[in-house]
Amino acid sequence: MRSFMCWIVLLSSSIPVLAEDISTSITPAMVITANQLMDSAQRTNEAYAIVDSLTTEVGPRLAGTEAEARARQWAVEKMTSLGLKNIRVEIFEVPLWLRGEESAKIVSPFPQPLTITALGGSASTGPQGVEAEVAVFESLAALEQSSQGAVQGKIVFIDEVMVRSRDGSGYGAAVLKRRQTAYTAQRLGAVAALIRSVGTSSHRFAHAGQMKRVGSAVEAGVPAAALTAADADQLVRSLAYAKPVVVKLVITPRLLPPAASGNVVGEIVGRERPHEIVLVGAHLDSWDLGTGAVDDGAGVGIVLGAAKLLIDTLPQFPRRTVRVVLFGSEEVGVVGARAYAQQHEATLANHVLAAESDFGSGDIWRFDSRVVEEKLPLMAAIAAVLKPLDIAPGNNTARGGPDLRFLREAGVPIASLLQDGQDYFDFHHTADDTLDKITPSALNQNVAAYAALIYLAAETTADFR
Amino acid sequence: MRSFMCWIVLLSSSIPVLAEDISTSITPAMVITANQLMDSAQRTNEAYAIVDSLTTEVGPRLAGTEAEARARQWAVEKMTSLGLKNIRVEIFEVPLWLRGEESAKIVSPFPQPLTITALGGSASTGPQGVEAEVAVFESLAALEQSSQGAVQGKIVFIDEVMVRSRDGSGYGAAVLKRRQTAYTAQRLGAVAALIRSVGTSSHRFAHAGQMKRVGSAVEAGVPAAALTAADADQLVRSLAYAKPVVVKLVITPRLLPPAASGNVVGEIVGRERPHEIVLVGAHLDSWDLGTGAVDDGAGVGIVLGAAKLLIDTLPQFPRRTVRVVLFGSEEVGVVGARAYAQQHEATLANHVLAAESDFGSGDIWRFDSRVVEEKLPLMAAIAAVLKPLDIAPGNNTARGGPDLRFLREAGVPIASLLQDGQDYFDFHHTADDTLDKITPSALNQNVAAYAALIYLAAETTADFR
Repeated sequence: MRSFMCWIVLLSSSIPVLAEDISTSITPAMVITANQLMDSAQRTNEAYAIVDSLTTEVGPRLAGTEAEARARQWAVEKMTSLGLKNIRVEIFEVPLWLRGEESAKIVSPFPQPLTITALGGSASTGPQGVEAEVAVFESLAALEQSSQGAVQGKIVFIDEVMVRSRDGSGYGAAVLKRRQTAYTAQRLGAVAALIRSVGTSSHRFAHAGQMKRVGSAVEAGVPAAALTAADADQLVRSLAYAKPVVVKLVITPRLLPPAASGNVVGEIVGRERPHEIVLVGAHLDSWDLGTGAVDDGAGVGIVLGAAKLLIDTLPQFPRRTVRVVLFGSEEVGVVGARAYAQQHEATLANHVLAAESDFGSGDIWRFDSRVVEEKLPLMAAIAAVLKPLDIAPGNNTARGGPDLRFLREAGVPIASLLQDGQDYFDFHHTADDTLDKITPSALNQNVAAYAALIYLAAETTADFR
Repeated sequence: MRSFMCWIVLLSSSIPVLAEDISTSITPAMVITANQLMDSAQRTNEAYAIVDSLTTEVGPRLAGTEAEARARQWAVEKMTSLGLKNIRVEIFEVPLWLRGEESAKIVSPFPQPLTITALGGSASTGPQGVEAEVAVFESLAALEQSSQGAVQGKIVFIDEVMVRSRDGSGYGAAVLKRRQTAYTAQRLGAVAALIRSVGTSSHRFAHAGQMKRVGSAVEAGVPAAALTAADADQLVRSLAYAKPVVVKLVITPRLLPPAASGNVVGEIVGRERPHEIVLVGAHLDSWDLGTGAVDDGAGVGIVLGAAKLLIDTLPQFPRRTVRVVLFGSEEVGVVGARAYAQQHEATLANHVLAAESDFGSGDIWRFDSRVVEEKLPLMAAIAAVLKPLDIAPGNNTARGGPDLRFLREAGVPIASLLQDGQDYFDFHHTADDTLDKITPSALNQNVAAYAALIYLAAETTADFR
């Protein structure tokens, strides 16, 4: 019934799909098949089972570590069992940064511990730590405008609050603070930096996350850590009760020689045009504090679940190849994405469309694209197929997930299935990113949308460039 | 208006208050005054300001530590500034148990860290830790029924889930597990014990809390720690994927010689019968992981806030003395409550009523009592006064807060203002017990109820025994 209704919707729209060559359009038969895929997605919890397996059997999997290597092994075995082909690990190197000891406390006037975590890439304080008066700033911008005298010898503390939103739009501004504070603080003569966690949780979890990468040791920045929201509040209150407030910070991360990381690739080989690739990705690595369930186990489950659905459901594989890429080392600077773009430079022109799931497990609510203008009717046709999933048509300025950056810059057409991320930043990069934050049904709508999208993009022979 | 309506309610009820001697009943004038107190409570955030001050200026305050001593100093200063009299610290000794290092990990087959915290009073594993296969039990009862062979040399893991409820009734059963597991495990030859945290939070916080106290070193129990709910789930899943699961546990707490703790006492001296005491309490100590905002900073704020309201609002102090007792060392076995009962044994007969606030910051929804039967009409009259606060009359089997145990056993009449505790066990005893979990207005209803109760109990000369 749903299939029929969608087909009517499509036919009654003004999209001139029937005027094109049949294989370059979204045909009624393709819509029926896409609807069958979407129906099937509601009846399986395959994606959840995959996230369960990854987060339990591997757990945290920081870029460049032995745990990430185990995740690659897991991915190879999982892809094999799901029926993907041409499975391989594409190795590259990544800077290896390992968290060490970490603690902080208010030394005076109100002695008590503070909960923190070192920012990814931070310099070490050494085991003795640093102890200094705290200078608070409401934003990174305020620190940048301050004078050297104001923070010389002090620990700067940026108390900027991240804004909650469905589309995660508060993240960009918040990330600036995480990326930059250590270097601005160093330039102004501070001895360490604390930031209010980049996140929206009211619970006492510090959010990890990468700082800007800089080249030389002299530009390493001061040791930098994130306070939980509750501890940031506590520090603000302490400063209101009495000054000076002296804090001791101990973080001893180590930057080691580059280590092996890798992207794991598997395919559903196209029946007619195997060299034309519809890429669907997620990232395999996670931060080290949680088990990487919402970031990005969910994405791994969604894209593998969608691939599995195509393999199990379709009477014949699509014309084009569907390539699943589980990127390594996303969290530490999209290192796997850069490696993929370099290693596959010669065939990027054959990448007809790319999509990535990397925003947790919330429902998809909008479909954006980045394709050549004359193919917008095709995108509208895909949007019409997705409509029963409560997915609205969006715009043609899709950016895709973070791992699609270099593909996008190389001209690969992009599709974005935007998820509701209201609570995404409550969990992501924290110790609280665990499997219990995901419900099986939450992933099924995502699987349905991805299955329909990648099937349609791989079954048509339209050129989206 | 509210005062007038309540007075009507009282008069139209069948309670024969006007037939008694005026001072032993709840008179219309007293009701009017109580209502004025309740109205005033809505217009001040005094209780919140007190919790803010305690949790910021002192923070965590574990029994017997220097931090608890600072809390006593804080309390003396706060009581002084609020206008209480006869302020003193009543010192006693408490076993001093200090948390050390703590970590746990799955060694095989799925290496990854687990989040734990040592149970209060636990033995140490030593810095080398213990490493052993995990044997899971669905409950303490199941462990108790197992054979020695089943757990010999293993780490037992009790996966019992605590039930969420308004009245906290799930806590008693859950606490049995926390108190007893280390000893049962020791008797059966296990090397360590893990329990699913006694708590209802889905967030990744381990819940601290006291084990049973036993006398001798040979009965110290095995080292015992609580897993967060997410980590308990993870361990259960790991066991489902593959056995054996080997865990390494490192906890190095120390049991030190007894240290000084104390109760802090302050009074509103009765104008006619100063030797008759209406005791209102909360506990000053907290567990060490959070800042003790809901447990029991809220209670401290509520009872001090209510006392302050009486001091500021009443045209004359009540006939009887209102004694505020901030108990020390509640968390480690109601040590302060026992000391109070011993130190005041000679005057317990003069304690006409006792109440304690120790269940967080939720609204009060019921009023229970434990008084002599013929004074139930008086309790009903108090209940009628509290009714506009949405507080229902309860029963006459009140137990009071934990610190009232010895007073109750000594025959002191008890009043219980029962709070809604749906979310109390999400926070209590965890690192997440911080000020942001309380909203100022949430405490005002509590202050209103306590102010009315203690005023009425102290203004009447009725004997509740």
